[in-house]
Amino acid sequence: MEPLRVAVAGLGTVGSEVINILASRKELISSRCNREIVPVAVSAQDRLIDRGVNLSGYEWYADAAEMARKANADVVVELIGGAEGIAKTVCETAIGAGRHVVTANKALLAMHGISLAKAAERQAVGLGYEASVAGGIPIIKALREGFAGNRIASIHGILNGTCNYILTMMRETGRDFDEVLLEAQELGYAEADPTFDVDGVDAAHKLALLASVAFGTEVNFDAVHVEGIRHISADDIEFAAELDFRIKLLGIANQTELGIEQRVYPCMVPMNAPLAHVEGVFNAVVAEGDMLGNIVLQGMGAGAGPTATAVISDIMDIARGIILPMFSIPSSQLKKLDPVSLDTRKGPYYVRLTVLDRPGVIADVSAAFRDEDVSVEALLQRGRSEEGSVPVVLTLHETVEHKMQRALARIAELDTVVEAPCMIRIEHL
Amino acid sequence: MEPLRVAVAGLGTVGSEVINILASRKELISSRCNREIVPVAVSAQDRLIDRGVNLSGYEWYADAAEMARKANADVVVELIGGAEGIAKTVCETAIGAGRHVVTANKALLAMHGISLAKAAERQAVGLGYEASVAGGIPIIKALREGFAGNRIASIHGILNGTCNYILTMMRETGRDFDEVLLEAQELGYAEADPTFDVDGVDAAHKLALLASVAFGTEVNFDAVHVEGIRHISADDIEFAAELDFRIKLLGIANQTELGIEQRVYPCMVPMNAPLAHVEGVFNAVVAEGDMLGNIVLQGMGAGAGPTATAVISDIMDIARGIILPMFSIPSSQLKKLDPVSLDTRKGPYYVRLTVLDRPGVIADVSAAFRDEDVSVEALLQRGRSEEGSVPVVLTLHETVEHKMQRALARIAELDTVVEAPCMIRIEHL
Repeated sequence: MEPLRVAVAGLGTVGSEVINILASRKELISSRCNREIVPVAVSAQDRLIDRGVNLSGYEWYADAAEMARKANADVVVELIGGAEGIAKTVCETAIGAGRHVVTANKALLAMHGISLAKAAERQAVGLGYEASVAGGIPIIKALREGFAGNRIASIHGILNGTCNYILTMMRETGRDFDEVLLEAQELGYAEADPTFDVDGVDAAHKLALLASVAFGTEVNFDAVHVEGIRHISADDIEFAAELDFRIKLLGIANQTELGIEQRVYPCMVPMNAPLAHVEGVFNAVVAEGDMLGNIVLQGMGAGAGPTATAVISDIMDIARGIILPMFSIPSSQLKKLDPVSLDTRKGPYYVRLTVLDRPGVIADVSAAFRDEDVSVEALLQRGRSEEGSVPVVLTLHETVEHKMQRALARIAELDTVVEAPCMIRIEHL
Repeated sequence: MEPLRVAVAGLGTVGSEVINILASRKELISSRCNREIVPVAVSAQDRLIDRGVNLSGYEWYADAAEMARKANADVVVELIGGAEGIAKTVCETAIGAGRHVVTANKALLAMHGISLAKAAERQAVGLGYEASVAGGIPIIKALREGFAGNRIASIHGILNGTCNYILTMMRETGRDFDEVLLEAQELGYAEADPTFDVDGVDAAHKLALLASVAFGTEVNFDAVHVEGIRHISADDIEFAAELDFRIKLLGIANQTELGIEQRVYPCMVPMNAPLAHVEGVFNAVVAEGDMLGNIVLQGMGAGAGPTATAVISDIMDIARGIILPMFSIPSSQLKKLDPVSLDTRKGPYYVRLTVLDRPGVIADVSAAFRDEDVSVEALLQRGRSEEGSVPVVLTLHETVEHKMQRALARIAELDTVVEAPCMIRIEHL
């Protein structure tokens, strides 16, 4: 069989690692695919950077779109990134030219996944995107193939390593968000502009893709409810530990009678849940299948090696002729995703208030919850403060989100409540 | 495309569930495979049992081998079990007749995997066996496809749910092995004859298969060092907790400079290792890839639903045309597995002794370790006993197995040591 020829657009750490692996373990890869895979062309902005990989044997394109159109390649690997612009052009051009595409670009796919899936199907080419969700964890393959006979009921995932690292460090050191973020930036675990990560957008991109492949629905990023972790304080982390929880930024997709819930927010996760023990930059996904029960996949969610693992797995699948519809079923059969408002969420809650240390405060707070039919499970109050304000922490029995929000609005108006209440949802997964 | 026709040999809970799922979710499965999958024939010993599934539409064979030869089927699913006899005949006959085979039979494959793989390759048919290792966890697919670009350095797995359940219950209730085993048998978590499970043989079958697919070597079950969990006492479980460990029966396959280590034995696993938190009947596998780092897959290792998930995933792969060499590379390219003696194991150890409560005992024990160049890390001694004998627990710094064994042999001979020493290896994975 003819070798599979690969062109790589974007030569950051992942792109360089992909080239490096394809070049250095030809024998292993060809014995596993029964076909050679050879890099033939590369494209990046700057030709002169030393990337620690010998590029002299490959055609060089300054323009990645031109490479996608003209290179003598069967597969174009897009590692440029970004939801619009050149990355999108490269993918569209490659597909239009009848080439397979492999990408790690979750933002692009969360926005344009359906039109790209349709284009790929029209051209009968593959569109591999394992690397775009949870790095080296083969969750797309697991959902599309490994669990393929199951109806998936829910997905819960730690999908952003930066947030998980920050939350882990906050717990281990007792420090506040801002301080830990700064350190994460210095260590390269957070970007200079951390918005996409710490505000939950990156996790939401990934969640929207997981929901589509799990439930057979069109990607609907706009229907994802997104909250980040900036408002989580060192106090919350400490109270969580006291209550036998860990705080994790989760992406949650649930198939319910009302439609499909897609949510990204920080949660209290009980210590006996598998996701509670996933720490640092690790990612993990729990999928619940109707035959399978809960299954957990955990591994490195980012970094050159894990991401290149997923890219190369997608390329090897193409070499083996494994080309499946992007979201498991043909895109014409995908249903519109019926979004479910967060207002209908049912579950327990954690609330931290900062209140003046005066008689009657607890009575007022309790009355607000009672009036909205929200029942208090536990209340923790810390010793007196010199400034006269003290933290009060409550856990609330299962209730409906809109009642909870109304109660919190009333509580926020109390004179004795001196800061905006911090609410964190409790998820017993 | 013509429907894919399936014949099922063996109608226990798994076989019945496979029929049930194929019959009841035709639409889901055919939209995911772009091809219908239809059961056409079944075989079991007793036609009259009510299995909760309507079999009237399928051809009935009293003789599974006859079905494998004659049924109008593309795929034969073998769920009879056993390393020899009818299960083997069914698989060989089906392959010989040019039919794909899907099986959950680890004993058969651990013994005859290579000859079956060669036969399947000669006939250009698939031989799916995802269900034979770790139930619903798609570890074979992950190793063969998801991590396919990686060199795998090691596999660590909790591969037997019965043992993990027993060890978990021993910890939770403080009871001894025999008592918990009896309860597990009553609950159906252990077989009437528990030998294969509690003596580690079942885990060893699975480990031998994982090693082959991970390292590209011929299955070599005889080279697996196998120890079970019968000698683990309630005391060991308690000391483990005190030392911040959990006791787990692990299957371990390591690629080393000397060759490939294949071992099944109970280990002390530190509480911060992901496998420490895998409890009850769950299975889990940690694979270490050179690009990927450690990745963990955790889920139900047995039961009708999880096992049927794996069987159906294999059938759906065949329907989609995904047919790969059984052990990742063509069987003619598999290397002979170079076994490594357990004597060369390097690592820390836990030892529990039962000693007479007399002066000088600790000095004698310490001297035995010192003379074999084994260095003591910690020593725990429990209060006095009425019978005059007390448990003493030691942890030993990293040493070589053969030194450890020599030291233990000397210690066993001491007059003051009244029971055979219990040694458990510590694995920092």
